[in-house]
Amino acid sequence: MAALEGVAAGMLARVQRDGGVDEVAVELPLEIRLNGEAVAVTMRTPGHDLELAAGFLYGEGIVDDPPEVGLPEDLAANVVEVTALGAEPPASRRFYTTSSCGICGKGALEEVAVHAPPVESELRIERGVLAALPDRLRQPVFERTGGLHATGLFTAAGGDPLLVREDVGRHNAMDKVIGRVLLDGGLPLRDRVLCVSGRLGFELVQKAARAGAPVLVGVGAPTSLAVELAGDRGLTLAGFARGGSVNVYTRPERVV
Amino acid sequence: MAALEGVAAGMLARVQRDGGVDEVAVELPLEIRLNGEAVAVTMRTPGHDLELAAGFLYGEGIVDDPPEVGLPEDLAANVVEVTALGAEPPASRRFYTTSSCGICGKGALEEVAVHAPPVESELRIERGVLAALPDRLRQPVFERTGGLHATGLFTAAGGDPLLVREDVGRHNAMDKVIGRVLLDGGLPLRDRVLCVSGRLGFELVQKAARAGAPVLVGVGAPTSLAVELAGDRGLTLAGFARGGSVNVYTRPERVV
Repeated sequence: MAALEGVAAGMLARVQRDGGVDEVAVELPLEIRLNGEAVAVTMRTPGHDLELAAGFLYGEGIVDDPPEVGLPEDLAANVVEVTALGAEPPASRRFYTTSSCGICGKGALEEVAVHAPPVESELRIERGVLAALPDRLRQPVFERTGGLHATGLFTAAGGDPLLVREDVGRHNAMDKVIGRVLLDGGLPLRDRVLCVSGRLGFELVQKAARAGAPVLVGVGAPTSLAVELAGDRGLTLAGFARGGSVNVYTRPERVV
Repeated sequence: MAALEGVAAGMLARVQRDGGVDEVAVELPLEIRLNGEAVAVTMRTPGHDLELAAGFLYGEGIVDDPPEVGLPEDLAANVVEVTALGAEPPASRRFYTTSSCGICGKGALEEVAVHAPPVESELRIERGVLAALPDRLRQPVFERTGGLHATGLFTAAGGDPLLVREDVGRHNAMDKVIGRVLLDGGLPLRDRVLCVSGRLGFELVQKAARAGAPVLVGVGAPTSLAVELAGDRGLTLAGFARGGSVNVYTRPERVV
């Protein structure tokens, strides 16, 4: 396979189809081990696995500081080993729970949201810059396969891309970006803007809020709980960023 | 909110934005209880919750036959109670596992795939009918919010829609369709075609294969593991169904 800038080895595969060969995005399970114990398996596109593991554990509230991350001796094992003294997986917050949720958004937020302080940032971004970010979300593998989501980290002043990650899982793409920043000691993200290629669900807002990002913009529509969580955490949530237009749902004072 | 055919109460919400009001898709957690014990919480769009719970448990391999499903006395609790004698959740197959995965698809499949027999079906579908299914995937809420995924169940002969479900989660939409068929005693789906509005990942193929569907088609791209699993289970996987064209990745003999 020809090398392509920004595309890690193993992100693409060729598959036969009727009448030709397609390049498709690779999807494989990754096991995340914390202090020697397996805590999660996620379906992901290989590449930036250390960042993915770090970002996942941070987003889940399992680690607060940059952990040690490494690969096992068997590099083909699709495993990341994370060491973080004192960190323990919660009693399966999301997938196994015992209390019921209220129908109201507030009850739902209390049930499922990871604790994160309100976002504090004086950041401002021009509406035109915000609306144009999705076009700057270069997606080298998507362009070849049509199969990946992307998350990008941008400057607010010029809308310049600092970091872009792709994955078959939209949450993984954001975990990879936030994990990289975490490992570099750059959290919280007070003066940066996050942009995603798709729709804006609750979990993406939660990850952004947990990382302290003041602005999250996406190409697609937000969900009701995404809007509620963004409002609750003081994050500016913007959707439908297309063709020079953008809808701002919460904290519009940051968009000038 | 005005009533709209095919839209259940609680699927839409109005939210303020700068310069107006948008209708957005509702996203709220649903707790699934099996024999009195909470086994999963999923973020979903309300509506068809009983079907979602039944389809989820079937797709995970936790139930094989139609379970009893019901709501608790507190209808606002966002909980479904499922009763299935002898059924037990596995030891957290997907999210908590202890063995590592090989890099090869085969190893990955053995690690993460739910056991399902090979799909057996003599079904045939015309290429033109297959390519046109996404256009027939009516999405009443998507058209208003831009925020939902859909799964549809179609006849092979005429490509007629039998059942369409929408959800913020693409897996939920398919669980709702398969759950309805399960509760009606209609599995396996040997003579029906499943169509999804988005990309074709591993988990959607797994759910389709588990339900015995011979053909799965989507608007978007497949992943590598989706193609491998479809081939392994004998399911016809087709993607990029747009503008009268469709790419068939596995078992093309069913497309005539």
